[in-house]
Amino acid sequence: MTFPAPLTGVVPPVCTPLTPDREVDVPSLLRLVDHLVEGGVHGLFLLGSTSEAAFLTDAQRALVVEAVVAHVGGQLPVLAGAIDMTTSRVLDHVRAVTAAGARAVVVTAPFYTRTHRAEIARHYRRIADAAPVPVIAYDIPGAVHTKLPADLVLELADDGVLAGLKDSSGDLAGFREVVAGARSLARTTGFAVLTGSELVADAALALGADGVVPGLANVDPHGYVRLYRLARSNDPVGARAEQDRLCALFGMVNAGDPARMGGSSSALGAFKAALYLRGVIDCPATAEPQIPLSAEETERVGKHLAGAGLLQGVSDTPWGWSSPGGH
Amino acid sequence: MTFPAPLTGVVPPVCTPLTPDREVDVPSLLRLVDHLVEGGVHGLFLLGSTSEAAFLTDAQRALVVEAVVAHVGGQLPVLAGAIDMTTSRVLDHVRAVTAAGARAVVVTAPFYTRTHRAEIARHYRRIADAAPVPVIAYDIPGAVHTKLPADLVLELADDGVLAGLKDSSGDLAGFREVVAGARSLARTTGFAVLTGSELVADAALALGADGVVPGLANVDPHGYVRLYRLARSNDPVGARAEQDRLCALFGMVNAGDPARMGGSSSALGAFKAALYLRGVIDCPATAEPQIPLSAEETERVGKHLAGAGLLQGVSDTPWGWSSPGGH
Amino acid sequence: MTFPAPLTGVVPPVCTPLTPDREVDVPSLLRLVDHLVEGGVHGLFLLGSTSEAAFLTDAQRALVVEAVVAHVGGQLPVLAGAIDMTTSRVLDHVRAVTAAGARAVVVTAPFYTRTHRAEIARHYRRIADAAPVPVIAYDIPGAVHTKLPADLVLELADDGVLAGLKDSSGDLAGFREVVAGARSLARTTGFAVLTGSELVADAALALGADGVVPGLANVDPHGYVRLYRLARSNDPVGARAEQDRLCALFGMVNAGDPARMGGSSSALGAFKAALYLRGVIDCPATAEPQIPLSAEETERVGKHLAGAGLLQGVSDTPWGWSSPGGH
Amino acid sequence: MTFPAPLTGVVPPVCTPLTPDREVDVPSLLRLVDHLVEGGVHGLFLLGSTSEAAFLTDAQRALVVEAVVAHVGGQLPVLAGAIDMTTSRVLDHVRAVTAAGARAVVVTAPFYTRTHRAEIARHYRRIADAAPVPVIAYDIPGAVHTKLPADLVLELADDGVLAGLKDSSGDLAGFREVVAGARSLARTTGFAVLTGSELVADAALALGADGVVPGLANVDPHGYVRLYRLARSNDPVGARAEQDRLCALFGMVNAGDPARMGGSSSALGAFKAALYLRGVIDCPATAEPQIPLSAEETERVGKHLAGAGLLQGVSDTPWGWSSPGGH
Repeated sequence: MTFPAPLTGVVPPVCTPLTPDREVDVPSLLRLVDHLVEGGVHGLFLLGSTSEAAFLTDAQRALVVEAVVAHVGGQLPVLAGAIDMTTSRVLDHVRAVTAAGARAVVVTAPFYTRTHRAEIARHYRRIADAAPVPVIAYDIPGAVHTKLPADLVLELADDGVLAGLKDSSGDLAGFREVVAGARSLARTTGFAVLTGSELVADAALALGADGVVPGLANVDPHGYVRLYRLARSNDPVGARAEQDRLCALFGMVNAGDPARMGGSSSALGAFKAALYLRGVIDCPATAEPQIPLSAEETERVGKHLAGAGLLQGVSDTPWGWSSPGGH
Repeated sequence: MTFPAPLTGVVPPVCTPLTPDREVDVPSLLRLVDHLVEGGVHGLFLLGSTSEAAFLTDAQRALVVEAVVAHVGGQLPVLAGAIDMTTSRVLDHVRAVTAAGARAVVVTAPFYTRTHRAEIARHYRRIADAAPVPVIAYDIPGAVHTKLPADLVLELADDGVLAGLKDSSGDLAGFREVVAGARSLARTTGFAVLTGSELVADAALALGADGVVPGLANVDPHGYVRLYRLARSNDPVGARAEQDRLCALFGMVNAGDPARMGGSSSALGAFKAALYLRGVIDCPATAEPQIPLSAEETERVGKHLAGAGLLQGVSDTPWGWSSPGGH
Repeated sequence: MTFPAPLTGVVPPVCTPLTPDREVDVPSLLRLVDHLVEGGVHGLFLLGSTSEAAFLTDAQRALVVEAVVAHVGGQLPVLAGAIDMTTSRVLDHVRAVTAAGARAVVVTAPFYTRTHRAEIARHYRRIADAAPVPVIAYDIPGAVHTKLPADLVLELADDGVLAGLKDSSGDLAGFREVVAGARSLARTTGFAVLTGSELVADAALALGADGVVPGLANVDPHGYVRLYRLARSNDPVGARAEQDRLCALFGMVNAGDPARMGGSSSALGAFKAALYLRGVIDCPATAEPQIPLSAEETERVGKHLAGAGLLQGVSDTPWGWSSPGGH
Repeated sequence: MTFPAPLTGVVPPVCTPLTPDREVDVPSLLRLVDHLVEGGVHGLFLLGSTSEAAFLTDAQRALVVEAVVAHVGGQLPVLAGAIDMTTSRVLDHVRAVTAAGARAVVVTAPFYTRTHRAEIARHYRRIADAAPVPVIAYDIPGAVHTKLPADLVLELADDGVLAGLKDSSGDLAGFREVVAGARSLARTTGFAVLTGSELVADAALALGADGVVPGLANVDPHGYVRLYRLARSNDPVGARAEQDRLCALFGMVNAGDPARMGGSSSALGAFKAALYLRGVIDCPATAEPQIPLSAEETERVGKHLAGAGLLQGVSDTPWGWSSPGGH
């Protein structure tokens, strides 16, 4: 299939289910993909932050892309993160994920090294020159400690370097600047402006976002697809009600005790616990060195699911699951 | 050779010379190693930040370690960075660099992902469990945006997880706390406390550091070896004079125009320009997406070399070199 | 007048016009207030960040409140910032501004000192105990380097400590959490959730904000009042169009050259230049040590005004004004 | 007395003892001053961060300076902080503290507002123009979130704007750059380079600092005076031993539980608890909204005192003191 220009709709950053031994659990991954496709999503973003790309080895990354591409065939666009520190290392990932079938790559600003606006531009230009597929910028200052300036994104969009933006910065005002700029750039009609926010997706769509890439859509794809349709059909009141429900559900990310673990362990642990409790995946383990959720913390996740109406029919919820690696 | 416990002396983080096409320039690398060994250094740290580890592909990283290990044989300890985001990825690098002959690995806190004290501890414990060689912690908050707490380093030292610390944090007070703690831990007599500072190496040695790992030692290994010997022979006045000379030389890191490039492009570009001007390496190119120094900026580096007495006899300094990739 | 519970509508943080000698220009201040009242605003927030409260002496602060309160009588609510580092100093300002007639005070988290959640709570509790008027929390991490946690704001709202929140954090997701929490707290029906954003005011209102406190409303109060009414009358398309116009106008904050000055000099300088160009105030000077806009930079502000249709009838725009203190 | 140029020696930032009602306890303050003078200190720095200047009202600040100046007469230089956000507010404090008898003022970069190098320079120039006494720059990025660049400090020193630097940045390399620069500036022979570090005072003196301004010198002035003398008499081994003892004593700043309070409450609470336990001041209360140390936390402080040999002869240590405001 041709990659859509612009990419639109709900494009979840797909979680990477692991076995108790922290290997990729391919059957669970494919069940998760079926769950998302059945939920009506418009694309799949593999190897993003929610996918624990930062934790997966190169072999695991390749396995994820190959398995999913083989499974979904050409039914919907598959994007893959090429998350690494600098240009040459990113290009190695670009080669690997496109060889495995990804139709677009998602790339952050350089990290670990100190960087600069001119270096970020050079980074994306070099990568777009070499990549056989469209390049989408991934603005995630919480991870890379640099914010992509809106005017730089638009400059690179105008030059055909970037095919889109996935904005996980939390800065809706800056996002709006990109939306407005993309609208006024004649040649970037194909540029996709996507928000990574779980919590203000309705607002982002109302101000002109092309799509949403929320981690929580792993847990409740139907909810985000409903939200997207309500927003597109100009029903802001309906969209807001759905968003409010999803905001409450998102509270699960605080399930983990901050005295025991970091925000990533808690949030990714909660998403996986929710998928486990919903029966989608076989094991809620997160990758090392993340701290597993305790039984009590997992129970908190279950309460969020129940509150959002997502645990009907689950009669024997295994609250007491404890991480095989939980020591 | 057995890895020394503790590691002591001057252990430069070895620059990685590149060709104009940004491939590893092995002949230049080996000439640089000879230059360092001739300068009297006590060990070699490959694939650190100064080595542009964040910019090198896995194949380039392996090539660097193999080439250097084959060249130096067992004459002095060779450490290698295993710089990556999280545990499994780091372990892949640990396997690669030890297969290539590294005798110790240097590992940062997790980055890109949000982390936590408990996760940092778990990270080092998992790595030490699996690594066939000693593990040295690399405290570099400027790169990973997390400071290793002194008491955590000491806890892991006491448990035999860590064999040393390379402190590039700039926080001499925290460094002192580790020095003091290591001294009082009976079982960690082998724990090495090393500073990455170019500028307060004399102070670090005076308060008990075992060694120094300064990037500038690529340019002037003799200077840091003199400094180390003066400090060890209780000649603080002599050490301070040598340090003052090296501080002036270090001014080269500001050669690059901050309106055009970031601090890494400027500092690593200056080190490589200096090695080029001194005739040690064939090409001063830095890895993408770093911005090359201009001819004028390179000239500034030359003035620092001349000021430190490191350009005598160079009659035909090629100031006008311009980066082959300088576009 | 009784202070409204909750406070709603457009409540501009009123600029403080200065003379060329950097004294408060009371006639210009009162003309600005008339301009705002004529524009239909619902309240006035004196001594906020946009008012240069951080730059005004205590005597100047008192003069501002006294002059405005005397001028507007009881026609609309007058709030005043009590911006200082810690509890006792804030309480001195609370006494001064309420003596001068302010009907509510706006208070940040402690700053300069390192702080803690428990200390922030204690700070607000002590201040509310002593203040004779309602206390509104001012969440402005860009200034105080601490983000007020949504759950702490809600806890203090529930306890009757806080009467509202002015959120200048840029974090719309956190803002939404306060909106949702305030809605569900029975006893805080009077709690006002206000955004300080110029750029996502429409989104904040759509998700339930009670009002907006945008600095740009000094320049274009009619625009924000229109936006507020469109949002309240459930016309999101109309609100978005007005917001888009205001976003373009807000571009004036980048008028100042970042190589010459900081963001505050540029943004506050632009607001004052715009008020000067529109004929509202006599002199665009900002307080020391801010850098004045140049003639060329002022011209950029004028272009933004013209683009937004705010310079009609100004035939002799004095572009060439240069700061009397511009040295 | 004439203000010394340069200022040298041990110049403690004097704690401000408070009564249980958080008023300035003048008798305790004067006993503390006597304790410091008897300890051999070379100057007194009032209204610094350790003095809780950020917490004291203007009336309390004036009282502190008046009381101490009247008490010490001209026996030793008295400096005072003029800690506030921007130029005009700082100048009001400059007038107040010099009227009260301070012989020099200590001034930070602007804070709360976003700032810029050009604005910082303008700030110090305006203040030096108006101040009747020497101006010392206070580099404290932990409080003001801006680091004073070494080259800017030297430029202002060369222009006669600044009479010295108090460096509380923790960046010894940057400090060294100022020391080296001040040495080479002919006209700034009177420029004083002072470190605020408790923990690397020996290193700072060894590399050329003129003096030290350690908060812990309130607790143990004799220790820092011994350290200063040993450093000045070229006894680095003796200085290091004294410094090691003081580093262990400084551990008291972690007495407070970080789950209950911030770093300021803990550190300033510990200094005051130590002065109380040593019998110097009547009450260990810190200013609002700081959290008081518990009895158990106070006991930890006592153990540090005992470990440093500072509790001899105290037979009835009142461990059980609990804060009158401790609720």
